[in-house]
Amino acid sequence: MTFTPQDHEFMQIAIDLAQRGRFTTTPNPAVGCVLVKDGEIVGKGFHFKAGEPHAEVMAMRDAGEKAKGATAYVTLEPCSHYGRTPPCALGLIQVGVKKVIAAMPDPNPQVAGRGLKMLADADIESAVGLLAEKAEMLNQGFLKRMRTGKPFVQLKLAMSLDGRTAMANGESQWITGEAARADVQVGRAAASAILSTGVTVEMDNPSLNVRWAQLPADIQQEYTQHAVRQPVRVILDFHHRVQPHHQLFQTHSPVWLVGNQERDLSPFPDFCEQIVLKTAENFTALSALMSELGARGINSLWVEAGANLAGALIEENLVDELILYIAPKLLGDQARGLCQLPHLTQLKDAPLWGLKSAVKIGDDLKTTYIRKTNG
Amino acid sequence: MTFTPQDHEFMQIAIDLAQRGRFTTTPNPAVGCVLVKDGEIVGKGFHFKAGEPHAEVMAMRDAGEKAKGATAYVTLEPCSHYGRTPPCALGLIQVGVKKVIAAMPDPNPQVAGRGLKMLADADIESAVGLLAEKAEMLNQGFLKRMRTGKPFVQLKLAMSLDGRTAMANGESQWITGEAARADVQVGRAAASAILSTGVTVEMDNPSLNVRWAQLPADIQQEYTQHAVRQPVRVILDFHHRVQPHHQLFQTHSPVWLVGNQERDLSPFPDFCEQIVLKTAENFTALSALMSELGARGINSLWVEAGANLAGALIEENLVDELILYIAPKLLGDQARGLCQLPHLTQLKDAPLWGLKSAVKIGDDLKTTYIRKTNG
Repeated sequence: MTFTPQDHEFMQIAIDLAQRGRFTTTPNPAVGCVLVKDGEIVGKGFHFKAGEPHAEVMAMRDAGEKAKGATAYVTLEPCSHYGRTPPCALGLIQVGVKKVIAAMPDPNPQVAGRGLKMLADADIESAVGLLAEKAEMLNQGFLKRMRTGKPFVQLKLAMSLDGRTAMANGESQWITGEAARADVQVGRAAASAILSTGVTVEMDNPSLNVRWAQLPADIQQEYTQHAVRQPVRVILDFHHRVQPHHQLFQTHSPVWLVGNQERDLSPFPDFCEQIVLKTAENFTALSALMSELGARGINSLWVEAGANLAGALIEENLVDELILYIAPKLLGDQARGLCQLPHLTQLKDAPLWGLKSAVKIGDDLKTTYIRKTNG
Repeated sequence: MTFTPQDHEFMQIAIDLAQRGRFTTTPNPAVGCVLVKDGEIVGKGFHFKAGEPHAEVMAMRDAGEKAKGATAYVTLEPCSHYGRTPPCALGLIQVGVKKVIAAMPDPNPQVAGRGLKMLADADIESAVGLLAEKAEMLNQGFLKRMRTGKPFVQLKLAMSLDGRTAMANGESQWITGEAARADVQVGRAAASAILSTGVTVEMDNPSLNVRWAQLPADIQQEYTQHAVRQPVRVILDFHHRVQPHHQLFQTHSPVWLVGNQERDLSPFPDFCEQIVLKTAENFTALSALMSELGARGINSLWVEAGANLAGALIEENLVDELILYIAPKLLGDQARGLCQLPHLTQLKDAPLWGLKSAVKIGDDLKTTYIRKTNG
């Protein structure tokens, strides 16, 4: 089947709608839906939050009677299973849509195509693959978790032009400017969880939360303070550096302390849990941790950490996206470096990345790189 | 006086013409000229090479009889002095142009306005300042030398994402890709001179020349092999590391060896000269060297060097533009750093830069930064 320019237009609207759920749907995917009849949009919907109606249901409600005979543009194949809500494919059949166009199939290979099959069995025409790449980008986290059982990992680093994160004495506030720091808030807000270490907590005592007041104005407008979802804070803390007095616990949202033995959590608030990994020490446990986070429904993980954890994640090949904020300063060779890669000895083995984007944010440059395989 | 959209259009054409001399005019500026009569271009010209006619003369020759009564659009105020050629202002008067619009005044404050005055004295209308910023960009080197007596210094560095230039063992070929290296050839070709050090010559034995075959195809087309000008190679060589067998001397174009005492040049080819600076040692002499290079007509200096010279130039505040080629690799904290800044201890004193552009070149990112003053 070939898609018309109008099909593209309507699917783009569905994608824009889906975007509106990007800060809130985790562990669900962000999905948008548009119902079109006689060339006119008769219903629009997007999924806002797990437990609330899916995009298709919202669009059908919006359309009311007009849904009958309409074409549905959905950014993801309508679901075919009974979860917290009945299957959307069934809903579309019941209201009598004429045709369904999905941007991409269900990422779970075991159910992919089942929603479309339900429609076909009810004699409803369907097609899949319109603006698929854009639809993929909507849900990098959800899709990776569905496909691999692990979260999509974004490693955020802030550095000088010469790749330094702090002066030799540790001074580092602030290398990047205010606009870049506001952008970091957006990255946090979109993530299911934030990963850091007990060492960082001990040294900097960060909150690792989303500060709505610091989000850019355009995002504040679409994502109100009332709707803010705080990501889970996951802290690698094999040596029990994290203590109840730390800033982390001033924000009422889950903190998961990661160690390799049970720990007494009674001094901590009840939103503090632990993840006990039966592995040796620290960073050797990273891959196991990712599987555990995937099992707990973490779609995307935003990492804010020092050169040790950054290097370990890179050496373990666990980073999907590298987000580098580059400040227009030079700190010199005595300053602290970006990442420890102790096992790297030859240039040909250096981890390779592909530049996805480079954007000026305030005085800083934000670059985003995707992991590539060497050779 | 206000300029019309047509004025802008014609001046833009003059600027594009001027560009065609950007690899060859040094120590002269690149200048373009368009003669317009009754809304039509009747003559076009640009300056190609010192000793050859100026842009105005080329345009007048192109226009022939039609120059009479035309308006001249010139990217730089017409000259008023007798040099290797008679003053262009006089030439324009003699052919009887009606009006002259210059993008910017002569950068030499002592003669600025004289060309326009000559025109005014001959009752020819004139104006200055149309597309001045673009005209400035044409001749950053020439303009800086005219204004300060020193060349415009571009420091080129190639590094990994984490600001590293080589592995711990020194392995560095190639960090960046072929396209970035071709772009470096363009940078060299546009420079009056290239600066490097005896240490680099001894270690890498580079040619530091322009290799026409490696220039991008579009540049080869406008800048033929026949026309290639080789920049002067300036080598800081206080310890006489440079020897006649080095690759440098395989390209027949000036090599200036910089030291602090007279040296026997008889083993070297006759295009090798020396600059003797009566200063202590090495990098303390950099500011004096810049003045000397300015006096020798070097408009722009392209620096390819290691972390020591890079850092010294930055600490002495001698770098106008930082050109960073960033390869999409991580080399880790044991790898070699970008620049030594031994005197920097506080973040607030870190040299500050302004991002001018960021462009993807092949797999690499080319960023260009301009020096800013702190605080």
